Amino acid sequence: MSILVVGSVALDTIKTPQGTGKDILGGSATYFSISASFFNPVNLVAIVGYDFPSRYLKLLKKRGVDLTGLVIKRGKTFRWKGEYSWDFSYPKTLSTCLNVFSEFNPKIPPEYKKSQYLFLANIDPQIQRKVLNQVSPKLVALDTMDYWIENKRNHLLRLLGSVDLLLLNESEARMLTYQESIVKAAKELIKLGARMVIIKKGEHGSLLFSDKFIFSIPAFLLESIVDPTGAGDAFAGGVIGYLARCNKITQSNLKKALVYGAVMATFAVEDFSVRRLASIDAGDIRRRLKQFKRLSCF
Amino acid sequence: MSILVVGSVALDTIKTPQGTGKDILGGSATYFSISASFFNPVNLVAIVGYDFPSRYLKLLKKRGVDLTGLVIKRGKTFRWKGEYSWDFSYPKTLSTCLNVFSEFNPKIPPEYKKSQYLFLANIDPQIQRKVLNQVSPKLVALDTMDYWIENKRNHLLRLLGSVDLLLLNESEARMLTYQESIVKAAKELIKLGARMVIIKKGEHGSLLFSDKFIFSIPAFLLESIVDPTGAGDAFAGGVIGYLARCNKITQSNLKKALVYGAVMATFAVEDFSVRRLASIDAGDIRRRLKQFKRLSCF
Repeated sequence: MSILVVGSVALDTIKTPQGTGKDILGGSATYFSISASFFNPVNLVAIVGYDFPSRYLKLLKKRGVDLTGLVIKRGKTFRWKGEYSWDFSYPKTLSTCLNVFSEFNPKIPPEYKKSQYLFLANIDPQIQRKVLNQVSPKLVALDTMDYWIENKRNHLLRLLGSVDLLLLNESEARMLTYQESIVKAAKELIKLGARMVIIKKGEHGSLLFSDKFIFSIPAFLLESIVDPTGAGDAFAGGVIGYLARCNKITQSNLKKALVYGAVMATFAVEDFSVRRLASIDAGDIRRRLKQFKRLSCF
Repeated sequence: MSILVVGSVALDTIKTPQGTGKDILGGSATYFSISASFFNPVNLVAIVGYDFPSRYLKLLKKRGVDLTGLVIKRGKTFRWKGEYSWDFSYPKTLSTCLNVFSEFNPKIPPEYKKSQYLFLANIDPQIQRKVLNQVSPKLVALDTMDYWIENKRNHLLRLLGSVDLLLLNESEARMLTYQESIVKAAKELIKLGARMVIIKKGEHGSLLFSDKFIFSIPAFLLESIVDPTGAGDAFAGGVIGYLARCNKITQSNLKKALVYGAVMATFAVEDFSVRRLASIDAGDIRRRLKQFKRLSCF
């Protein structure tokens, strides 16, 4: 079952304790697409400027990502500059230049409309709504961030009733629900309309809540991280990629999807940009999944 | 196989967002003993003052904890006053009165010397050493805290070669090794002499490192916590209690021990002091273990 992703494709300049990457391929839709592409075909809707390097287009195409929906517009590509300190928690944003992204008004190409799995990556909830109005997928997954919770809370809340799988991190879940307990926050989000909620906890793993069950996995343990950018989107790519491949939303598949998400996130953080993530193969995923099982099954 | 624990028995006054407990039974050895007593007989070595309420002695005896090694001395019992804010992370210490605990010079009763499992709860590393000089158990587990890492680093480091199972939290592991990565910190601790290392991550679960394998579990999810005091010691009680009951240190038993530790910690935090922990039965533990499996197995 093919997957549709709507989000950002960007050029990032990132400094971490392990080094620096300048104008490297980034953006939520990029990390998601490449990660999900290991499981299923991906249809991408995004916008870039004339300065977008053709080698990055090639890279996406090589991973089988359909670029019919990628608008290339006069102007500059969305650029983000950030810096991580030693603990790799939140990055410090040094600059954000939306450029052509500020005019992003996603139109879903007709050939994308039958995509059954939709990932609304972290963008303005009003744009996410516009996308939802154009399609009727089997599963809608949605990511967001503190900025939208602060500035577009009501738009975001109104979306929740259309969301099957809401992905956010711990502090975002608390912000959106005013609940300190993560369990209470997740339950509140379900009450607000989301069918299921995934709480991403970075190096501490992730949690999945539905009204029927709760599932919890630790994170895969990496000795060193090069660049955590995109980990959450690569995680989402693994989760939704796996679900689309199974094409059956069962409790058991959801649990495995979470594990595949964790596995894909580890590849994302092992190098800058999608360098490592785009260069793996099915064998790498299989091996890491095995390691994950050894790490966490008792 | 009987278990020997050397640590503190205290009277705590604790404030949490859920309420207040005044002069309630606390101390590392208390939480550990009661937790471990569900798995195996426990021999306690500690010191209290003449003011120690007899109902607390009865409570410990009722759980089958042997009190031959509990010295009752003229003076007041160790008292700790602390407060937790809404996120239940570190408590703010309001006051610490060591009282008779400042004269703690543990002598292991002859009938305790054949105990095969030793838990050196969080006390002065020099006192931990004195205990080690009196016994030769099959497994030595040791807990510590930031205060000893800061003030008795070398004494603590010299102990590590005698430790089979070192228990500490993330920040303590970083403090003791100057390593930012938890994986690197744990490996460093093994290089420094500890045979195995357990990193306690509170609501994010725990990690077990040996030179042969790594194991990771998420925490059990509780909707609300009443008082997190003693969670780490109740966890240790579950881990060492289970290992002593199996009396065989295999990879599989170690993994299960970690899960039992997590389960016992959940009971500790559901009420003030050991109220909940001391009132459970084998069925409660079995049911929660089942829930834990449902929560984390895929």
